[in-house]
Amino acid sequence: MRFFSDNAAAVCPPVLAAMAEANTLDTAYDGDRWSAQLDDRFSALFETEVRALWVPSGTAANCLALAALCPPHGSVICHRDAHIENDECGAPEFYTHGAKLRLADGPGAKLTPESIAAALDGVRDDVHQVQPHAVSITNATEYGLAYTPAEVAAIGTLCSERGLGLHMDGARFANAIAHLGCAPADVTWRSGVAALSFGFVKNGGMSAEALIFFDTALAEATLYRRKRAGLLLSKGRYLAAQILAMLDGDVWRANAAAANAGAALLAAAAPDRLVYPVEANEVFLRMSPAEAAGLRALGFDFYDWAPGEVRLVVSWDQTEAAIRPLAQAIAALGPSPQLVTS
Amino acid sequence: MRFFSDNAAAVCPPVLAAMAEANTLDTAYDGDRWSAQLDDRFSALFETEVRALWVPSGTAANCLALAALCPPHGSVICHRDAHIENDECGAPEFYTHGAKLRLADGPGAKLTPESIAAALDGVRDDVHQVQPHAVSITNATEYGLAYTPAEVAAIGTLCSERGLGLHMDGARFANAIAHLGCAPADVTWRSGVAALSFGFVKNGGMSAEALIFFDTALAEATLYRRKRAGLLLSKGRYLAAQILAMLDGDVWRANAAAANAGAALLAAAAPDRLVYPVEANEVFLRMSPAEAAGLRALGFDFYDWAPGEVRLVVSWDQTEAAIRPLAQAIAALGPSPQLVTS
Amino acid sequence: MRFFSDNAAAVCPPVLAAMAEANTLDTAYDGDRWSAQLDDRFSALFETEVRALWVPSGTAANCLALAALCPPHGSVICHRDAHIENDECGAPEFYTHGAKLRLADGPGAKLTPESIAAALDGVRDDVHQVQPHAVSITNATEYGLAYTPAEVAAIGTLCSERGLGLHMDGARFANAIAHLGCAPADVTWRSGVAALSFGFVKNGGMSAEALIFFDTALAEATLYRRKRAGLLLSKGRYLAAQILAMLDGDVWRANAAAANAGAALLAAAAPDRLVYPVEANEVFLRMSPAEAAGLRALGFDFYDWAPGEVRLVVSWDQTEAAIRPLAQAIAALGPSPQLVTS
Amino acid sequence: MRFFSDNAAAVCPPVLAAMAEANTLDTAYDGDRWSAQLDDRFSALFETEVRALWVPSGTAANCLALAALCPPHGSVICHRDAHIENDECGAPEFYTHGAKLRLADGPGAKLTPESIAAALDGVRDDVHQVQPHAVSITNATEYGLAYTPAEVAAIGTLCSERGLGLHMDGARFANAIAHLGCAPADVTWRSGVAALSFGFVKNGGMSAEALIFFDTALAEATLYRRKRAGLLLSKGRYLAAQILAMLDGDVWRANAAAANAGAALLAAAAPDRLVYPVEANEVFLRMSPAEAAGLRALGFDFYDWAPGEVRLVVSWDQTEAAIRPLAQAIAALGPSPQLVTS
Repeated sequence: MRFFSDNAAAVCPPVLAAMAEANTLDTAYDGDRWSAQLDDRFSALFETEVRALWVPSGTAANCLALAALCPPHGSVICHRDAHIENDECGAPEFYTHGAKLRLADGPGAKLTPESIAAALDGVRDDVHQVQPHAVSITNATEYGLAYTPAEVAAIGTLCSERGLGLHMDGARFANAIAHLGCAPADVTWRSGVAALSFGFVKNGGMSAEALIFFDTALAEATLYRRKRAGLLLSKGRYLAAQILAMLDGDVWRANAAAANAGAALLAAAAPDRLVYPVEANEVFLRMSPAEAAGLRALGFDFYDWAPGEVRLVVSWDQTEAAIRPLAQAIAALGPSPQLVTS
Repeated sequence: MRFFSDNAAAVCPPVLAAMAEANTLDTAYDGDRWSAQLDDRFSALFETEVRALWVPSGTAANCLALAALCPPHGSVICHRDAHIENDECGAPEFYTHGAKLRLADGPGAKLTPESIAAALDGVRDDVHQVQPHAVSITNATEYGLAYTPAEVAAIGTLCSERGLGLHMDGARFANAIAHLGCAPADVTWRSGVAALSFGFVKNGGMSAEALIFFDTALAEATLYRRKRAGLLLSKGRYLAAQILAMLDGDVWRANAAAANAGAALLAAAAPDRLVYPVEANEVFLRMSPAEAAGLRALGFDFYDWAPGEVRLVVSWDQTEAAIRPLAQAIAALGPSPQLVTS
Repeated sequence: MRFFSDNAAAVCPPVLAAMAEANTLDTAYDGDRWSAQLDDRFSALFETEVRALWVPSGTAANCLALAALCPPHGSVICHRDAHIENDECGAPEFYTHGAKLRLADGPGAKLTPESIAAALDGVRDDVHQVQPHAVSITNATEYGLAYTPAEVAAIGTLCSERGLGLHMDGARFANAIAHLGCAPADVTWRSGVAALSFGFVKNGGMSAEALIFFDTALAEATLYRRKRAGLLLSKGRYLAAQILAMLDGDVWRANAAAANAGAALLAAAAPDRLVYPVEANEVFLRMSPAEAAGLRALGFDFYDWAPGEVRLVVSWDQTEAAIRPLAQAIAALGPSPQLVTS
Repeated sequence: MRFFSDNAAAVCPPVLAAMAEANTLDTAYDGDRWSAQLDDRFSALFETEVRALWVPSGTAANCLALAALCPPHGSVICHRDAHIENDECGAPEFYTHGAKLRLADGPGAKLTPESIAAALDGVRDDVHQVQPHAVSITNATEYGLAYTPAEVAAIGTLCSERGLGLHMDGARFANAIAHLGCAPADVTWRSGVAALSFGFVKNGGMSAEALIFFDTALAEATLYRRKRAGLLLSKGRYLAAQILAMLDGDVWRANAAAANAGAALLAAAAPDRLVYPVEANEVFLRMSPAEAAGLRALGFDFYDWAPGEVRLVVSWDQTEAAIRPLAQAIAALGPSPQLVTS
């Protein structure tokens, strides 16, 4: 059983059904009747007027957002462990034409107004240093923590004071919302977020993420950047259809809730091993190599995150029945090894 | 009935079936068992060792190829009517970091060694001018003409003599091969092509094109560029599966042959109206606005290409029965209007 | 005697003197007392508030201006024979991060509202084509013609209507002004120019050009771009001093007038050979290879511009006494050969 | 008396004299007889065949070198306090088209094989992370320490093993050599350096730095990049002349030795205040705000580097007589305050 990554999970049935339904001739690119619905559907979901674009990957969503918020000679503050810094092969630099990521710290890959301010205050206000133009936060974070509306609002206030745009990488936005139970608006535009990468792929989609602009003026140039990056697929209706299928009947919430519940099951099996609280669908556990080998010998697959630490990710389609054996195996390991960290 | 663009056609059944079959957990990105087959499958098809990458759009395939062949300070010779010049919103400049497209001429959007040499010879060999590094040709061309192996080989020889890389935009490569009847190898690497954008989307695919490197050394850096551009989709197996499904049993050839046959049917209806010979699935006809309006009133949809000229594109799934009414309507228009060209 | 290029002329005495005078310790970069005067001095010259930056080359001035006026996904309309297209090795593409130069036509390398409109109208207003954001004209043009205030104003009006920024490459702006006799304001901001590359190097300077922003809001980001391009020299006072020395006592006008007068002398020697009217310091003459060889045998050096055509450029320091022998030698050639054009 | 920066010092007499001597007509750009000597003169100095280009700034030299060593999708390892990271406004990212600087640590801004290896080992070898392609070290470092030949060779060996190019930012290379007393070759190519930014401006030049390629194959494309960046000044002979004047009679060594001696004088005044050993012309002293204010009241100017720490830089033209008063004033401050560090 794989707990390696939600990236690799299967696609959920409503998405496949919607793609089959879209399998008829329509206008190319985003001129079709599915794509045409995105603005309205997301405006309804977010209780405000937004512009919503499909893109085929989370990296694309993130980097189009950053390019909209930061000029080539600017910088984006992000966490040292952010996906945009570590896992996108320099895509932010490519899309922004060489803007700099300036790294800030915080436990659980979560930024705070203080850690952001510290990063900002380290920059001299002269032409010799790259000046900050935006902040990017990830919700849920790379370690599975959800920013609350209050936490985002505090950062949003700082951004507003300092003239910075605020981007949210929501590759696991659905998991964050499922945990928080708040309105999607609360943790985004009401808290100062200008652009959101709203992830669907990890949550049961196939190849479509939504890039949401709460600052709708940013959308116009992004349409050109999307095309210019080879991201404007000619049969875009199959992407729009995926997203719409997950909005219909709140499939996105249900899938995320299921994955979160699975993670909670694993967390409950070894509370003393948890490196971080489990709020989304990721579980980071302290585990010796021998223990990890033992679990693998039982057929469980997962990621060695760091020395003495493993990552388990639960996907939308992993049932309690499928997860329980792993939970039991973890519980059977006994007490956690000593904390190994730097 | 739409004859607007093959870009907008439905996806063919084997592709949908393959995607459904791929709907199981596997390794993310291109670590899955479908992606792993591409090199071998295309090596077999092309009778030589190639490297083959899936990408989600033709623009992406073209521009990754150009970035592999041309440095930021170089230029790519292409036809004035090439898709990379006119229809990709500057994607070549984005991917190459500012290389220049240098435009050459030729009837039917087809380059010749002579027109390429004329473009090359207009460049002073000094640091004040952008020096040529590559040539890009489109097969079938934007006007539906196929380069023969001999024509490509003549260009390939020139490229070799001048130290230029040769790229082929094969958005309708299948249609060209269906027309030429030659081995895919003949019109590509045997004729000097280093990289091919092998199109599947217009020919019945959904969201996967293949980028083929005959010069396999070019593939390595391209893997990083693909990721860096947000093109490395996490559930890549659904893209690989599309391509494999079209290679299986030569679906790609059958689809292209069907579309070409449909175009031939239309061409036969009005030989005196043809702006170009019909070799692939595109038909350019001289037609007055009144005539075009008449056809539209009958329910036929197509593109006004230029004053007095329309473009009809036949898709893989348009049957003879569906096409014949249009052919009859065209034939019924009577003799062609006078040629209107600049 | 060289009539090859004003690029290679000596530096005029007031410039050298000013540089010697600046040879004392002051604040680095542009924090010195010379650099601090530029805004005011150019504001006075142009009779309006401007922002003025020194840069070490005309290419740098041009391309910083273009980067201020055109986003990476946009295009700049310029003449097919413009320096930015032909002689800057892709610097516009480098500085703009891949914007496109869209080429327009016009005799003498001069654009008109009509030729610009023709270029604009060839662009479909959709995301598949690179949209125009700016126009760049050269005054005096690459063929030594001066745009009059009325000509620039007509272009300025078009730019204003179409939402385009207007840049003037004034590598030989001084020569244009010396010919026109108008106020510098008339042919720039009063006619809609947003940014001017004001050349000093060809006109007796050493290594300093002025980039003038009439649209002063464009200056701020340019300060960062200048630094980021390695153009913010640490001992900037020597550049500022050069420019101030040429503004003092209107040295820039006197130098340009002298060069123009020299060119007029040559033009008068062979009015039937002139390819273009001589308005600045460049003279293009029809001349057979044998005739050109004859002149070279007499010790005159110049550029073979095109088959049957040579270019003579007079520099600020070439006296009438030095020029007259060439004028006489040209006159002695007799009547012009037949026009040779392609 | 200013001890703020050697960036702001006057130009030394031989340089001015050489510029005056160059004030005659010659071929433009780098076709003149001064520029033509650079390869040979630096090849002699470095005892091996090199390619040497003038550029107008140290940032330009550094970033052209980095662009030659690192592709857009790569990274350069440098010290956290390196000039390229902190003081060039993202010029490395601009010139490399978005490569990443990956930061390593070490006291005195000096890298070691161990600190570089630690940075390298933090990078997963997959397409999701930006892979290292080069290392850049600064000699003398930003804190005035000189890398010895053995130290550079140890880094060079690591670079060679890992397939990385090695760049040396030698903005104060002369000061390093004056301290080390070794052959310039020893601390550069003999130790694995592929490209050197050889600084002249801080050491008595005006506007010319030399970019030296020991890996001569890197020079060719750099010629295009230099032009493309607007750095190929048309009257390049004045830059070449500056450099040649400083090579003649070893002016560069004498100037650097003088500055180093001045720094040593200051260091000797307060050995207990030194934050770093003084090896070049920079002196970092622990100093309370009150003490610093006292010195300033006496007419001395310098940089507040960090809380409780000031930087004094001695320039080539500051005589012992000019420096001694500051040395005495520092000595008169009495014992150093407690170390203040974060």
